[in-house]
Amino acid sequence: MSGGSPAAEQPGIAVVGAGYWGPNLVRNLMGSPDWDLRWLVDLDTERARKVAAPYASVQVTSALDEALADPRVKAVAIATPARTHRDVAMAALRAGRHVLVEKPLAATEAEGAELVAEAAKRGLILMCDHTYCYTPAALAIRELIHSGELGEVHFVDSVRINLGLIQPDVDVLWDLAPHDLSILDFILPDTVKPVAVAATGADPLGAGRTCVAYLTLALSSGAIAHGHVNWLSPTKVRTITVGGSKRTLVWDDVNPAQRVSVFDRGVDLARPEELGADQRRAALVSYRTGDMVAPALNEREALAAAVEEFARAVRTGTPAATDGRAGLRVLRILEAASRSLAENGALVAVNDDALEGE
Amino acid sequence: MSGGSPAAEQPGIAVVGAGYWGPNLVRNLMGSPDWDLRWLVDLDTERARKVAAPYASVQVTSALDEALADPRVKAVAIATPARTHRDVAMAALRAGRHVLVEKPLAATEAEGAELVAEAAKRGLILMCDHTYCYTPAALAIRELIHSGELGEVHFVDSVRINLGLIQPDVDVLWDLAPHDLSILDFILPDTVKPVAVAATGADPLGAGRTCVAYLTLALSSGAIAHGHVNWLSPTKVRTITVGGSKRTLVWDDVNPAQRVSVFDRGVDLARPEELGADQRRAALVSYRTGDMVAPALNEREALAAAVEEFARAVRTGTPAATDGRAGLRVLRILEAASRSLAENGALVAVNDDALEGE
Amino acid sequence: MSGGSPAAEQPGIAVVGAGYWGPNLVRNLMGSPDWDLRWLVDLDTERARKVAAPYASVQVTSALDEALADPRVKAVAIATPARTHRDVAMAALRAGRHVLVEKPLAATEAEGAELVAEAAKRGLILMCDHTYCYTPAALAIRELIHSGELGEVHFVDSVRINLGLIQPDVDVLWDLAPHDLSILDFILPDTVKPVAVAATGADPLGAGRTCVAYLTLALSSGAIAHGHVNWLSPTKVRTITVGGSKRTLVWDDVNPAQRVSVFDRGVDLARPEELGADQRRAALVSYRTGDMVAPALNEREALAAAVEEFARAVRTGTPAATDGRAGLRVLRILEAASRSLAENGALVAVNDDALEGE
Amino acid sequence: MSGGSPAAEQPGIAVVGAGYWGPNLVRNLMGSPDWDLRWLVDLDTERARKVAAPYASVQVTSALDEALADPRVKAVAIATPARTHRDVAMAALRAGRHVLVEKPLAATEAEGAELVAEAAKRGLILMCDHTYCYTPAALAIRELIHSGELGEVHFVDSVRINLGLIQPDVDVLWDLAPHDLSILDFILPDTVKPVAVAATGADPLGAGRTCVAYLTLALSSGAIAHGHVNWLSPTKVRTITVGGSKRTLVWDDVNPAQRVSVFDRGVDLARPEELGADQRRAALVSYRTGDMVAPALNEREALAAAVEEFARAVRTGTPAATDGRAGLRVLRILEAASRSLAENGALVAVNDDALEGE
Repeated sequence: MSGGSPAAEQPGIAVVGAGYWGPNLVRNLMGSPDWDLRWLVDLDTERARKVAAPYASVQVTSALDEALADPRVKAVAIATPARTHRDVAMAALRAGRHVLVEKPLAATEAEGAELVAEAAKRGLILMCDHTYCYTPAALAIRELIHSGELGEVHFVDSVRINLGLIQPDVDVLWDLAPHDLSILDFILPDTVKPVAVAATGADPLGAGRTCVAYLTLALSSGAIAHGHVNWLSPTKVRTITVGGSKRTLVWDDVNPAQRVSVFDRGVDLARPEELGADQRRAALVSYRTGDMVAPALNEREALAAAVEEFARAVRTGTPAATDGRAGLRVLRILEAASRSLAENGALVAVNDDALEGE
Repeated sequence: MSGGSPAAEQPGIAVVGAGYWGPNLVRNLMGSPDWDLRWLVDLDTERARKVAAPYASVQVTSALDEALADPRVKAVAIATPARTHRDVAMAALRAGRHVLVEKPLAATEAEGAELVAEAAKRGLILMCDHTYCYTPAALAIRELIHSGELGEVHFVDSVRINLGLIQPDVDVLWDLAPHDLSILDFILPDTVKPVAVAATGADPLGAGRTCVAYLTLALSSGAIAHGHVNWLSPTKVRTITVGGSKRTLVWDDVNPAQRVSVFDRGVDLARPEELGADQRRAALVSYRTGDMVAPALNEREALAAAVEEFARAVRTGTPAATDGRAGLRVLRILEAASRSLAENGALVAVNDDALEGE
Repeated sequence: MSGGSPAAEQPGIAVVGAGYWGPNLVRNLMGSPDWDLRWLVDLDTERARKVAAPYASVQVTSALDEALADPRVKAVAIATPARTHRDVAMAALRAGRHVLVEKPLAATEAEGAELVAEAAKRGLILMCDHTYCYTPAALAIRELIHSGELGEVHFVDSVRINLGLIQPDVDVLWDLAPHDLSILDFILPDTVKPVAVAATGADPLGAGRTCVAYLTLALSSGAIAHGHVNWLSPTKVRTITVGGSKRTLVWDDVNPAQRVSVFDRGVDLARPEELGADQRRAALVSYRTGDMVAPALNEREALAAAVEEFARAVRTGTPAATDGRAGLRVLRILEAASRSLAENGALVAVNDDALEGE
Repeated sequence: MSGGSPAAEQPGIAVVGAGYWGPNLVRNLMGSPDWDLRWLVDLDTERARKVAAPYASVQVTSALDEALADPRVKAVAIATPARTHRDVAMAALRAGRHVLVEKPLAATEAEGAELVAEAAKRGLILMCDHTYCYTPAALAIRELIHSGELGEVHFVDSVRINLGLIQPDVDVLWDLAPHDLSILDFILPDTVKPVAVAATGADPLGAGRTCVAYLTLALSSGAIAHGHVNWLSPTKVRTITVGGSKRTLVWDDVNPAQRVSVFDRGVDLARPEELGADQRRAALVSYRTGDMVAPALNEREALAAAVEEFARAVRTGTPAATDGRAGLRVLRILEAASRSLAENGALVAVNDDALEGE
């Protein structure tokens, strides 16, 4: 709550990284009634100072330790390059601070597991900023699935293609698929888990890394999920279709006028036991063609919802909706997908047991 | 040629099958200046009679032999169920007639190979009616690729999804992928061939057959082709994207106002030899964002172009653009894809050598 | 013929005109369980014979009188050029037959009034084939308005533009606006009537007739309706928006996947009497942003529904939903619009009283 | 500041108004190499201080006079409410400063004329910030028309509808049509001028002001322009179609992937003199259906181009593309449209002569 309540009651927070994503964190934390943004940390203090200029209360430093020495800082939000996530987050955790990390959680599954273990050991909140999960669309879709309105999930198909920047250090899979995988992790019921992944791809340009990739996930329920990520497409497509036994929805993220469409349209299959012996096979299949509803979505910025969720997790001591484990699950699938890619699309198991044991 | 020239100069033709597709063949052959449609053959002569009613010159029979006994019949167009293609086509070939067969060429690769061999032995034209290849869009795309305007093909991505009829005898792969595979075969340069295929899929409904499938084709050039076929999608998507080194095109078949869009948009990679030693890696990649052109397409019915191509092949004794071998190549990939599906997406080689030796 | 009733119980009907629209009438009447199509009349009997060929029971003649001499013919469906509607329809009415006329009802309001009067005098059904009114979309929209779900109609905006054939005998207003005006007449509640029309337009090409036109209708309720008709647009747009006090709908007829969208979105105005004295003006306006629903529409051909409605009217002796009076109301507005066009857009009254007195 | 030139060489500028539009001006002037932003003036200095916070060099004041007392200030950019434009701009002009005014130029035509006269008398630049004219789309369209690529303009149709805020002080015409009218003024050749306007509209909600309006402009060339502005539409449409004798273009501003489409599609009319005496009328009309080209547009912010144009005008002493006279022409049409609206759509002349005499 802003206004009447004294700022002292809000937990203090430091942002590390004033590059691409950091300014968004700064703006949303300043706009939040839940946080008292006290520090912006960046080796390039000039850059940090510009970002912090409109906010008199934010101090700038190049030394994380200086921010961690402030006893009112209870949490750290990290927006540095992925390869540094492990070290920065570990320093914050070891200093007893809750941590929000920009996606991906870490550069490797092993590093991510270290962070999850450290946070668990210390009873601290570790949240991964899977920002897309906090869009009004993803929140609505999660609700539609978890409430049972879609029925059982039959298939998920995600297309995320665009003329994209060919990254110097990662392939298209590690650049774009984290979005799809974190959304999938977020919207699926807890009982439905990826059990194996097969990935194919190509580097037709000779860019030195995969620029077009497809990945198929076998889900524990027998359902299938598939993603298409592509840096070479002249058109921008960001569509996720979730087929359910009761309804099917399409999230078209480049259509702001109608992002989510829920179709009461599908194929129904009568179960044999429900049929008399003499009924013909054709009778087993029927088709529904009902209305389509595009639910009204509020227009809140995703990152505002994410920092609110981080505050809720810290306040209540319960895991964030996209906690460190969620970040780790995404890394696990990415590593399995990379192995599959190297093995010409062979199916690679995604063993979730170790993770659950942590 | 219609009008002045006597019908006697046009080769006679018989259509076999008056069910779903036969009436379209009848209508297009009657509208063609290249053919003299003389017979419509169907076991259900009542049905055949209705189809032939507007055309006084077309005789109806339930016996293929009766049509084959007519010496003016030089060719047979077959629109019967796939499982009968081999027998009907073989009878026509053995009677010395040229043959046009509705897709797929036959129910299995082995049966298709028999037909190809028989036609080759007898010096007869065997054409597969891959109708989509004769749409103005596919013809324009083939020309754009073959003329070099697109440059080298880097990737082909095809999506063909809809709330489709769950077929009683085939899965979604055999129902829909023949369209994508025949188009791919048609538009790619002769030097680019599929060498292996990996397919994944699911039957989340428990319908007894795969209802959602994905297949990746490794092409001999290092490029990649991918198809998504799906009977369970609430929305109808029929989009083929062809990424080239010079341009990239999108064929959106459900947008009649702009089916084909050619984008002068893409990623360019400077070759190392073109760069000085001290140029940085980043310099290797550049992006083009040029105009988009949607070429005017004529509005001809695809089947009209197909029967014209059949006439041309018969007249000149040269293979049709979608000849029996093309039909066989499609069957070969379908069988390999089915094997991959059974083996959890393992890459299955598509050996083209045997085919070429025929 | 449906069910057990013998064909003899169905009223006989004759179609006059085998040109553009006649074959559609023939096909739908043959497919209808309500009618016994007995005659196809056309001066060009060759053309008529081709159209009737598939239907053994349909007799062909060049003489309307021959069909009218058949006592089993109870009704006549007219699909001849508009300038002949008056004479053909009058002959049928005078011979005691019910009449269905292709739109427009007649070439002029005066001729249309003659037909309405003659039918009324003789107690015969006169129906105008405003086909668009029988599309599933128009039927659904009428129901949404008449049931009160949209609330009061605030505005109707119709755009019907395309690269159209420049007609030799009529301008774009008389060519295209009859569709919009008949739909408007069909969907509006009976209590809401056009009271005046203002039309503007241009012939920028020098084609000798208006090729682009706009017309505004003042409605008796204070609402407004507007139409844009255009032969020169490179894109095809057929969109009708109906704004209501409770909901607003958009009918996009070139989007088969989502023709009708109903938005729970709009502006609400609190009434002064509902407000305390000190409430500020700003409080008067509020905005709704609710869900959008695209209702499932069946896929029936409009003309099938129209011939069914004609049968219903004949059987029950009650006016068709698009009766002669509806056709006359459309002509009345067209003539007023033409006058306005000639007077530079001056508002021209549409006096409905005389009509009602008929 | 760009390149090596010292800031001192850039003309100083003051922004008046830190409300909705002012911060955009501040940001673009700070990002411009052409200007030295020295002052931000607003009665609410608290608000102004927040806007100026990131820019150490910008001074804040509540007194316009203080900024005008700064000899390095050569120009003033005004983003205050329309009713204050006349007084603020007049003060700046009388102080010898060039002026950029947010649209509309003034609250009335008379006030606008005063400003135009004052600037002319003093030899100062008066520019109206018709921002839409500086979008890449409008600039490209102007070039297509002025270069002759579209041929003669036959019609312009503009639709600007949305669920809009019902303004407390102006109707929908004065709120939205300035955009359409300024774009029209900008893109049309100088030889084509509006000569008369007819406007119709309604206030179906009882909001106390017109919420839906249509206006037709007769152009001096015989062409027609039409605008539809609407606060009550559930969908957002911003489409301008310009029909030309050679090509026709559509600017769809809510489709960022393809804002401008140029169609080589249209109707051609052979001139009588080009035809032999016995050629039939039908021969006069022919149809083109050529390619469509969507030109690549750069992605520059319109306001950045506007402040650059202001700098160019100041530097060279030549009128801006959207100078005070352009702003005045827009006001003149708006006032004529309001008169027409009050007179039920009667055509009202737009006399341009007086304006030209100024």
